[in-house]
Amino acid sequence: MSSYSPIGPVVGIVGAGQLARMTQPPAIALGVELRVLAAAPDESAARVITDTRIGDYRDLDDLRAFAQGCAAITFDHEHVPTEHVKALVADGHTVHPGAEALVHAQDKAVMRERLTAIGAPCPAWARVETAADAERFAGEHGWPVVLKAVRGGYDGRGVWVCRSAAEIAEAFEAGAELLAEAFVPFERELAVLVARSPHGQGVSYPVVETVQQDGVCVEVLAPAPGLDPEDAAQAQRIGLKIAHELGVTGLLAVELFETAHGLVVNELAMRPHNSGHWTIEGARTSQFEQHLRAVLDLPLGSPTMTAPVVVMANLLGGDDPGLFKRYEHVLAHDPGIKLHFYGKDVRPGRKIGHVTALGSNLDEVRARARHAAVYLTTGEYT
Amino acid sequence: MSSYSPIGPVVGIVGAGQLARMTQPPAIALGVELRVLAAAPDESAARVITDTRIGDYRDLDDLRAFAQGCAAITFDHEHVPTEHVKALVADGHTVHPGAEALVHAQDKAVMRERLTAIGAPCPAWARVETAADAERFAGEHGWPVVLKAVRGGYDGRGVWVCRSAAEIAEAFEAGAELLAEAFVPFERELAVLVARSPHGQGVSYPVVETVQQDGVCVEVLAPAPGLDPEDAAQAQRIGLKIAHELGVTGLLAVELFETAHGLVVNELAMRPHNSGHWTIEGARTSQFEQHLRAVLDLPLGSPTMTAPVVVMANLLGGDDPGLFKRYEHVLAHDPGIKLHFYGKDVRPGRKIGHVTALGSNLDEVRARARHAAVYLTTGEYT
Repeated sequence: MSSYSPIGPVVGIVGAGQLARMTQPPAIALGVELRVLAAAPDESAARVITDTRIGDYRDLDDLRAFAQGCAAITFDHEHVPTEHVKALVADGHTVHPGAEALVHAQDKAVMRERLTAIGAPCPAWARVETAADAERFAGEHGWPVVLKAVRGGYDGRGVWVCRSAAEIAEAFEAGAELLAEAFVPFERELAVLVARSPHGQGVSYPVVETVQQDGVCVEVLAPAPGLDPEDAAQAQRIGLKIAHELGVTGLLAVELFETAHGLVVNELAMRPHNSGHWTIEGARTSQFEQHLRAVLDLPLGSPTMTAPVVVMANLLGGDDPGLFKRYEHVLAHDPGIKLHFYGKDVRPGRKIGHVTALGSNLDEVRARARHAAVYLTTGEYT
Repeated sequence: MSSYSPIGPVVGIVGAGQLARMTQPPAIALGVELRVLAAAPDESAARVITDTRIGDYRDLDDLRAFAQGCAAITFDHEHVPTEHVKALVADGHTVHPGAEALVHAQDKAVMRERLTAIGAPCPAWARVETAADAERFAGEHGWPVVLKAVRGGYDGRGVWVCRSAAEIAEAFEAGAELLAEAFVPFERELAVLVARSPHGQGVSYPVVETVQQDGVCVEVLAPAPGLDPEDAAQAQRIGLKIAHELGVTGLLAVELFETAHGLVVNELAMRPHNSGHWTIEGARTSQFEQHLRAVLDLPLGSPTMTAPVVVMANLLGGDDPGLFKRYEHVLAHDPGIKLHFYGKDVRPGRKIGHVTALGSNLDEVRARARHAAVYLTTGEYT
């Protein structure tokens, strides 16, 4: 099309959760038009993106119709079938990350094979087809043994930490294809977020500490407090190496265990990630802007922090759905607190938003984030 | 409504230009649903706000239909007839700023009368009905004389700097109701942006220098370089006093002249303002978030700067409409530059976007903003 359009290219995001929603602000700034494929018009991103198409990400026809006219297609989640991603590329569409990279975030066995091959630090692992296989693995590598669904798990779902043969049997009852991993006695969990563009530029954000409760991330501390600079540099090298070796285009989040014997890779995600929400206010280029730049093959932006310490706390739904009425106290209490709501129905344990605090003293910044998160979700003071 | 909605209140913005567009990112974060009244579905804000209503802001029926269900109504521009604003309030709607305040940003004669009454520094001024009145005013206060349309002017339109009786006659030919002001021999132009909430909380951003070309703002330097701290404090006091005395709710931008004899108020705007675009990345709370907070009567946010120096440069349309193709150079040249495009058709001289640079050295930061702005609009290097 030679006539000028005042908007930039269309980027299609498959899925309309909070990650797509939080991509809309940088898209507005860059003049990039977002399109989302939503299951329903009231999903988180569909509420705030005019070009919302309703469809099923498991249906190739829906994906094909969605892809028409998109300069690039990317994802809000990793659940699109690998063969559909390949079909879109075969049709001539630009998809980031591509199927060859994405499969490593979809299939934990493929991921472990590849990471082992490129020398990234992994726990001992093996594919297990039967409970007997898993018990044998535990016999070799010690108890507890961690069983993971090869496909489809997230936020602690699809992960079983088994301390007995009975617990192994229970995990196999779910019927999923499983992978066994040696339990890693970690000191804390870290994450490194990197971006890689199709032309090969790479950028790494500072390494963060992620605090988990019941397998769900509740807090992210940026940068990871007291992390040895050597370990921080190694984590960034691991992230950039994985992105390069796997041909990732867009964002890659690498979840890591910090152990007495060094870093171990836990999980990969190829999209903006909960461990990077702090970058919205905490870095010169947010992870959402960075992902847009990468999938459009534009030069990547500066990951420099905007404050010495940034803490993000997730808002997990409780029994009480009334959150907006609690804005007044939180905003009056702390004029610097930043609130993010996802426009999602409140259900117990569901991530419905997050808060970010910035400053220079970790204890103080962390207390501010926690105060806001606890009050917003429970109405209680900390 | 007692059932819970995952979104916050609906804020209606009359007008769908870039100010409404740039309000969508903080609305997304706060979970506030925006609704805009647009003249056409391809206007700047209509492209990025799902709840766009098409209508005429001069038509009371359109305004009434638009207002249904809004927790608060505010404005992208100051052109809504004062009597319509009063009618909406009489209907029971919440409108910020209200008609009594807004009229001061709509009618320059009312503004001058009121500012004079509250002791805010103004140039000599008078209503003038005929060319003879204006010549008499010039005789008393000296040439040149500045004639301004009492209503409807913006971006240098509706302002005539007259150096002769012939030029006065020309200004009267436009047929508008006019005001005469003594020409102010200013050293530079400043602006102060304040927010005031319905319950009376006030916040002031740092005073900035605005650089104008042909009556249009081309650059904003935050904070105003080398400004005497006494003058800065006085400017903030003037802004907060005007907001208080006029009962402004929402944002108030006060454009000021810096002269050898102190500060003089030039113009008022009651909405987010071009002189505050730097706050998107440059302040902990952007002017757009601040305006939303104010019109919802939520506690106001911190105006603290995120860097010692912030420079915003407007992108004014040139002959060449192809801007997106120039992203590559600009983003590669400067990983910290922030781009904002408004999704508007490019017309010569029209504000189609802006860029923001942050840092600690004014000359360097200013050069970065200028480089990006010149290259994006002309394809030339500076």
